[in-house]
Amino acid sequence: MKLDVLQQALGYRFVRPELLEQALTHRSFGSPHNERLEFLGDSVLNCVTAMALFGRFGELREGDLSRLRANLVRQEALHRLADGLKLGDYLRLGEGELKSGGHRRPSILADALEAIFAAVFMDAGFETAKAVIDRLYESSIAELDPARALKDPKTALQEWVQGRRMPLPRYSLANTRGEAHQQEFEVECEITGLGLKTRGIGVSRRAAEQQSAQAALELLPK
Amino acid sequence: MKLDVLQQALGYRFVRPELLEQALTHRSFGSPHNERLEFLGDSVLNCVTAMALFGRFGELREGDLSRLRANLVRQEALHRLADGLKLGDYLRLGEGELKSGGHRRPSILADALEAIFAAVFMDAGFETAKAVIDRLYESSIAELDPARALKDPKTALQEWVQGRRMPLPRYSLANTRGEAHQQEFEVECEITGLGLKTRGIGVSRRAAEQQSAQAALELLPK
Repeated sequence: MKLDVLQQALGYRFVRPELLEQALTHRSFGSPHNERLEFLGDSVLNCVTAMALFGRFGELREGDLSRLRANLVRQEALHRLADGLKLGDYLRLGEGELKSGGHRRPSILADALEAIFAAVFMDAGFETAKAVIDRLYESSIAELDPARALKDPKTALQEWVQGRRMPLPRYSLANTRGEAHQQEFEVECEITGLGLKTRGIGVSRRAAEQQSAQAALELLPK
Repeated sequence: MKLDVLQQALGYRFVRPELLEQALTHRSFGSPHNERLEFLGDSVLNCVTAMALFGRFGELREGDLSRLRANLVRQEALHRLADGLKLGDYLRLGEGELKSGGHRRPSILADALEAIFAAVFMDAGFETAKAVIDRLYESSIAELDPARALKDPKTALQEWVQGRRMPLPRYSLANTRGEAHQQEFEVECEITGLGLKTRGIGVSRRAAEQQSAQAALELLPK
């Protein structure tokens, strides 16, 4: 049976192969399809990649870990992994989607892969799903270079608003705390085009600005 | 020792209580503090609440599950749970934070609670962290009423842009597919103030509009 090859590539053989079939079924094909599984799989993937990054990069701060993870789980990265598994060959799509090339569409492939993670979880529990994900992501995580992957947040935020023709972010000092030799700065970052304000805290004004820009980036669409 | 009461309230006794102490330590107090643990705990919490909602609401679609989860894990909800555990009594804060009432600040309490979830995970693995979270969230999830918690996405999106004095979202038909008796509509939702465009697909134009609004909501800050 065709799914044998896929299960081999995943490194996991399903007790209930109907779960794998559901994960490969697009909404356009009929029910049960993979939409709800995708919700669950996305969460499992986020959690497992957080664990991997937390363990591997003991020196990185929270904001950097979040940004590295965003790189690992975004559609483009999932699409590449799905291609490696030849997921397109196994998808079950409605006629319209088939004709319009749905089995090559990055969003459909990425969603199906996330649904597969949920299917493994439902079939065999969290640790097994984690093992499947860890294996698939092994080389992506091994090759991660934080210095290259992480642009400084103020630069990244500036590029984000400029790309949308919005006014530049405004930074203002909101507060200082502590004594002279051990001061802490709180800065507010305002994106007027969005009515968005975030705050950051740091041991220097510049560090607080970077933190506030980071907080804004975490709220904005990629 | 003071932490005994907290561990009892959590329903978990740490093998390495120093992990719990770290989770309760704010950055202002010194290292090791809870910032990185918070990153990990947030992921574990998202995953566990996704599992709980997936199991409890078999009829809800992906977008609704996402929105229900956002309600469960947002700062306000975490803050309420942290208050129930009297977390403020256990926090370790720097002098500045102490003086300015940091042990009552919602963000500090919410972050510490997420860090505690990570500490349980590191001490005893995913299933134990899941049990602690499930127990804490038991009544919140039991009391969830999706009909009340879920506003229709177009209404929610309209309220979001109006709250920021931005122009109303514009919906336009991008595509129709399939034969007359089985048509599928694709609608684009544009938020001009943001340069944001999203798409939705549905069996009616209205359903596709709701989907596109939902897609936009998932990208916007809460």
